[in-house]
Amino acid sequence: MKTNILQKFELFNDHWSPKIIGELNGQQLKLAKVKGDFVWHDHANEDELFLVYKGTLFLDFRDRETVELNPGDFYIVPKGVQHFPRTKNGMEVWLLLLEPASTKHTGEEKTELTVEECEWI
Amino acid sequence: MKTNILQKFELFNDHWSPKIIGELNGQQLKLAKVKGDFVWHDHANEDELFLVYKGTLFLDFRDRETVELNPGDFYIVPKGVQHFPRTKNGMEVWLLLLEPASTKHTGEEKTELTVEECEWI
Repeated sequence: MKTNILQKFELFNDHWSPKIIGELNGQQLKLAKVKGDFVWHDHANEDELFLVYKGTLFLDFRDRETVELNPGDFYIVPKGVQHFPRTKNGMEVWLLLLEPASTKHTGEEKTELTVEECEWI
Repeated sequence: MKTNILQKFELFNDHWSPKIIGELNGQQLKLAKVKGDFVWHDHANEDELFLVYKGTLFLDFRDRETVELNPGDFYIVPKGVQHFPRTKNGMEVWLLLLEPASTKHTGEEKTELTVEECEWI
């Protein structure tokens, strides 16, 4: 079955709660709407791709300069690299994520934003 | 380093010759411009994702209905499934592909369109 990305974005409105839209070779494609600050975390064994569809996402790091992503931009956060996703001035940002199915939302951190198991839409 | 997908599309004009723009967890993101017919092939061990950025891509199959993909649509061709990508009426189509780094362009088929090793852009 084919999937349309923009139609999938219309199906949810909650923030920092990625939804799975596809899986291949053990990797999952997820969509997320985000706003404000997330939490510092890393994924010990998983590289993670952030691709922006709407708005501006900032990724802060402990070991490198902040990255600013606008629509059409992506960035791959390597495994083990601490990162802090955030948006500015209450802007809602739409993201596509690509990561292994094994990836935990906030790594080994447990916070009130942590989603234990992402749902399929 | 961040990558902008549309800027990467501007860097090449050849058809049926995917260019690598990212790699994570053993998977590669590739861009391709395609026009006309490709070849029947399958990838025995690799699922392959086709996401359309421009134009209309048709995927014919031996075992299922033809899929028509327009911008924003993606389809995951499961491993081992014979497929025939094509465009209609000489239309150029822009694609993003996601597949394992091990994926051979035309599977076990060797044709005049086969690219042995994709280049990074």
